[in-house]
Amino acid sequence: MRIILDGMGGDNAPAEIVKGAVSAAQQIDDEIYIVGKPDAITSHLKKCNYSGSRIHIVPASEVITMEDSPVKAIRSKKDSSLVVGLNMLKSGEGDMFVSAGNTGALIVGSRLLLGRIKGVDRPALASIYPDMTGGEPVLLVDAGASSESKARNLLEYGLMGSIYVENVWGRDNPTVGLVNLGAEESKGSSVTKDAFKLLDNSNLNFIGNVEGREVPTGVCDIIVCDGFTGNVILKLTEGVSLSIFKLIKDTLKSGAKAMLGGALVKSKLTALKDEFDYEEYGGAPVLGVNGPVIKMHGSSTARAVKSAIVRGLPYARENVVDIIKQEMLEI
Amino acid sequence: MRIILDGMGGDNAPAEIVKGAVSAAQQIDDEIYIVGKPDAITSHLKKCNYSGSRIHIVPASEVITMEDSPVKAIRSKKDSSLVVGLNMLKSGEGDMFVSAGNTGALIVGSRLLLGRIKGVDRPALASIYPDMTGGEPVLLVDAGASSESKARNLLEYGLMGSIYVENVWGRDNPTVGLVNLGAEESKGSSVTKDAFKLLDNSNLNFIGNVEGREVPTGVCDIIVCDGFTGNVILKLTEGVSLSIFKLIKDTLKSGAKAMLGGALVKSKLTALKDEFDYEEYGGAPVLGVNGPVIKMHGSSTARAVKSAIVRGLPYARENVVDIIKQEMLEI
Repeated sequence: MRIILDGMGGDNAPAEIVKGAVSAAQQIDDEIYIVGKPDAITSHLKKCNYSGSRIHIVPASEVITMEDSPVKAIRSKKDSSLVVGLNMLKSGEGDMFVSAGNTGALIVGSRLLLGRIKGVDRPALASIYPDMTGGEPVLLVDAGASSESKARNLLEYGLMGSIYVENVWGRDNPTVGLVNLGAEESKGSSVTKDAFKLLDNSNLNFIGNVEGREVPTGVCDIIVCDGFTGNVILKLTEGVSLSIFKLIKDTLKSGAKAMLGGALVKSKLTALKDEFDYEEYGGAPVLGVNGPVIKMHGSSTARAVKSAIVRGLPYARENVVDIIKQEMLEI
Repeated sequence: MRIILDGMGGDNAPAEIVKGAVSAAQQIDDEIYIVGKPDAITSHLKKCNYSGSRIHIVPASEVITMEDSPVKAIRSKKDSSLVVGLNMLKSGEGDMFVSAGNTGALIVGSRLLLGRIKGVDRPALASIYPDMTGGEPVLLVDAGASSESKARNLLEYGLMGSIYVENVWGRDNPTVGLVNLGAEESKGSSVTKDAFKLLDNSNLNFIGNVEGREVPTGVCDIIVCDGFTGNVILKLTEGVSLSIFKLIKDTLKSGAKAMLGGALVKSKLTALKDEFDYEEYGGAPVLGVNGPVIKMHGSSTARAVKSAIVRGLPYARENVVDIIKQEMLEI
């Protein structure tokens, strides 16, 4: 496979992106094309003492920043690493595009440059969501590509998510749950009620509604919701987790007994906190566009970049986009 | 004031309800009317050794259970504690109704029996939400009375929530935030974009959009969102908190060092967990109906019942419903 890597996207680009690429190249036999400013990338490759032949540099003079307006950036910054990378994927000069850049620009760019898969009304951004009971993480779709969804969109999210989890994560017959107000079929908005019926009548392994309380407990492999709800779920989970760990830290500093106890449990709590670190799990796919695109967290470190590349590889290798295309014709 | 208490609603009724009433009666000078099965209530009053004259029993032979369908229950169980209590409030035989019963039935009953305040399109259920940075809790509106909202509804939630927090909690010029995808005015669904404009042009102390990450950090006094999002926020917060505390508990049992440390920090962590206990804060109002109705958590204990009565009193005493009526004429 030929992996196209956005060398300039994300808070830690290009340093951590390049380090991550070098780290990935030690683990896989595939070619990696880092797109961006050649001088900067070359300099970081040198810092990593990289001497192999499987990392290549593709020049791109512009950078889409986190502050850029997505549509405007895609249209005006034609020589940005993000646009150049997506165009390489489109023209077949690479098999997968991985980026930690501006999320909106990546979604808009994927839609405009690669195009939607026939039958997909709205491409979706997936996100990796932790199972806080200690199990494997799950895939949440949509994480915010659209701010409103129709029932049909939710069915599509479930289908695309299932195909991804089955083929990229290797889970057989993965389960799909719909975020809703209550467990009963009769609960929810008009959209979720209709989506329940569509999902229930589909070939998916649909387990029914999932309430907010169950979302972090790994009850299904794919959590389906509209992008507004998905965005709130992801950010709220982060907010609540960080707040609790912060409070615990402060609590364990008050009083001699607590301080001693705190010192003894510190490493365990730190390890626990790391478990919720989204970066550990690699990237998540943009689903419903004509090509495998992986979005990494904006603050990805080298380790996250490596994970995104290595764990995302089957998205390209197993022709998952073609499977989605095929299945979309049948629903 | 004459407080009408649903003696039969909730998981722990009537025992904890009666105990809570007795406890409240020791703290306030108001009259309490417990509605329900006289034998059961009398027996629990005896168990509490209650000998005062300010607790009265109002007979009601039926009980609306948590499993009952709200609309059907309100129409068919005319002699239930919930319906009898709401009718007392309507006819002026009491000044406030407090219940831990079936949430849906309480909302539907309030709407059908008391009626909506003129100008209020949709009554809302508020909920008390913790500030996980250690500050005072905030009021979240709507917690799930409606599963979809128009922009105008969100403005109403903000207005009613502000009046409640100002007059019942005694906070001057409370701040209002709108749950949304991002901080910018341009973000969100068509409903939240329109709601932003309405809130921004109102007389409310509107601070703008609040992202999921900020929701648990006490950034504003009133958090406004549609009932679907509100339900997900409440339940997800509970799910994430419980999962983390469970994981911590398990973690601190693994290994001698962690076990020793865990024993030393246990009391601190338990105290911390209690801080998130919604019951501690008392009940939350049904807003937008013609009468002060307070909803308690279904699993309320005597302490929660006492808090709901004592802390909710100003809802009746300060004529908050009349203030809402007046303000609704002006927006």
